[in-house]
Amino acid sequence: MSQDRLELLSQLPLRDNLRGLSPYGAPQIDVPVQLNVNENTHPMPQAVVDAITEAVREAAATLYRYPDREFVALREDLAAYLGHGLTFENLWAANGSNEVLQQILQAFGGPGRTLLSFPPTYSMYPLLASGTDTGYLEGKRTGDYTLSADDAARQVIEHEPNIVFLCSPNNPTGTALGLDVIEAVYEAGEAFNTIVVVDEAYAEFALAGTRSALTLLPGRERLIVTRTMSKAFALAGARLGYLAAAAQVVDALRLVRLPYHLSAVTQATARAALAHADVLLDNVEDIKRQRDRIVSELTALGLVPAVSDSNFVTFGRLTDPNAVFEALLADGIIVRNNGLPGQLRVTAGTEAETSAFLNSLRAYLEAHPEARA
Amino acid sequence: MSQDRLELLSQLPLRDNLRGLSPYGAPQIDVPVQLNVNENTHPMPQAVVDAITEAVREAAATLYRYPDREFVALREDLAAYLGHGLTFENLWAANGSNEVLQQILQAFGGPGRTLLSFPPTYSMYPLLASGTDTGYLEGKRTGDYTLSADDAARQVIEHEPNIVFLCSPNNPTGTALGLDVIEAVYEAGEAFNTIVVVDEAYAEFALAGTRSALTLLPGRERLIVTRTMSKAFALAGARLGYLAAAAQVVDALRLVRLPYHLSAVTQATARAALAHADVLLDNVEDIKRQRDRIVSELTALGLVPAVSDSNFVTFGRLTDPNAVFEALLADGIIVRNNGLPGQLRVTAGTEAETSAFLNSLRAYLEAHPEARA
Repeated sequence: MSQDRLELLSQLPLRDNLRGLSPYGAPQIDVPVQLNVNENTHPMPQAVVDAITEAVREAAATLYRYPDREFVALREDLAAYLGHGLTFENLWAANGSNEVLQQILQAFGGPGRTLLSFPPTYSMYPLLASGTDTGYLEGKRTGDYTLSADDAARQVIEHEPNIVFLCSPNNPTGTALGLDVIEAVYEAGEAFNTIVVVDEAYAEFALAGTRSALTLLPGRERLIVTRTMSKAFALAGARLGYLAAAAQVVDALRLVRLPYHLSAVTQATARAALAHADVLLDNVEDIKRQRDRIVSELTALGLVPAVSDSNFVTFGRLTDPNAVFEALLADGIIVRNNGLPGQLRVTAGTEAETSAFLNSLRAYLEAHPEARA
Repeated sequence: MSQDRLELLSQLPLRDNLRGLSPYGAPQIDVPVQLNVNENTHPMPQAVVDAITEAVREAAATLYRYPDREFVALREDLAAYLGHGLTFENLWAANGSNEVLQQILQAFGGPGRTLLSFPPTYSMYPLLASGTDTGYLEGKRTGDYTLSADDAARQVIEHEPNIVFLCSPNNPTGTALGLDVIEAVYEAGEAFNTIVVVDEAYAEFALAGTRSALTLLPGRERLIVTRTMSKAFALAGARLGYLAAAAQVVDALRLVRLPYHLSAVTQATARAALAHADVLLDNVEDIKRQRDRIVSELTALGLVPAVSDSNFVTFGRLTDPNAVFEALLADGIIVRNNGLPGQLRVTAGTEAETSAFLNSLRAYLEAHPEARA
């Protein structure tokens, strides 16, 4: 923003906690290989394009009416997709999982209340806390960014948070939490009636054997599992985040949602994609192959990738991540520089995109042997 | 909600200001003639359905990418539609004008700050204030629900609000404010750096000679005019609210908006409708004719309709609005019972819907002469 505009902005009665901030968001740079925001980069299957088009054609005829405020049909489809005995009464959705998380904070957070999370984690959490005037508490991870059940429970007892956000698989590290961690946090939070949210935005990319927190929902009325259609369902552009929880949690969110918050077009688009889960989840399998290929090839290059249950890989040890970021960018490839010491994060792309990334990085490392720490 | 579910909800750590509340929203009752939520009831022109379908087909191919976070093309189209020398830098949009208003409160309201409005007015204002922990101040209108410039300015000086919401045309009364009222509120608010929002959701339905607050924007950096595509553009189902203001106001909202809050599908849908403004605004002219017909026929029936610059009419004097509401409902017609003493509100429908309403009401009044006060 220009100095003039900053000066004009400073004259407006902006809230104190917003003064001096910049808008959140990764740079949107138009380069050939975009592997910086963990999108599903596989081309949209034509069958899905056609289904969305037809669903929206049908919805368009009655767009002069408000949408179904309860979006029951979509919630039924989401429940059927998730399984685990869930019904539409356990499901809720909003315009992206950011809005789902914001609604959770509006219902259970706010002034005088606190949110605990464990950085490095999804960078929107503190911003969502600030936007709802919820106090943000930074928990601690060990040096390798892991979090044990005992340690997490101890920090819950120490901080007495009203809400805990657990990102699993974690962004930016990519590693899923063991269910023992979630169980321990939930039990430690019982004394404080703590709401425990497991953000499973990348759940469909999990390694074999990694279990979803959905399996923990029965009997845990303070547990919420959030998901998104942005990643596995390739709908980042359509903005559909959702959650599964006890029906009374959904009742609570209904008190804070803006009426008709989910458009009829969004509902139609999401349902059309859900009806084609099979072909979209086939793409997920290919993305997982590319992800595993990144992990093995980076290891062969002498780098240290984190265990990834997601569609991205965070890797070290680089002496100068900025230099590597810039070298890749010069080759038309953008990755994410999260500021983690010695690390970068890359999204698993198509086979061609993944190859472009690996080839560029390999060439750079060959020319710059000092780049590896 | 069942007692069991209410009991379960009460055990969750809901915020105090939500305890005991019910979700906001008019009943969604499926009757043949729905004139209760001020929708544009005219069938969607086929050209618009086709344009939306094609725009979404194009957008669907890249839905795996996040949408343009700045939605520049849509903001350009909205600026071109509004005119008044506005550019895309003056425009902002969100999922319905409720979300636009919520973002304004997130940027300029919040704990320790206040919003002043003048009931009876749009019933979401106090809920939006509560949802952002902004104090809500109820201004006063005269007995006939009007508001003069002097009176409004005096109340601003008395309350020193951080934000004022002026609904013009007002919902539920339907009458637009004179620009002198807005100018007076703005000037009175100068001492307190007050943000003044004019909610013009129904502006396109204004009577000849009613001027938009858009004409007041130049030189007034604390003034915001909100609009929606739900009414004149028949897009209630697509959720597209927007605003025009100084560019630095848009900069402020960018600090509180959730990243990628406006989906690529929503952007495409809105742009397709804007490209067909001519045919949609032709429908607006017909709706205004039906609205004027309601006003004249209700007057002929001995009732007292308010002056309406909108697509609805609030009318009295009824001895028992509930009885009239139920009688209309029994004929398959739903109107809105806002709880204003002796009054009901009806949306101007198609010619056939409007006739159905008028015929049902006429028959009721003939059978129940005591229904008129």
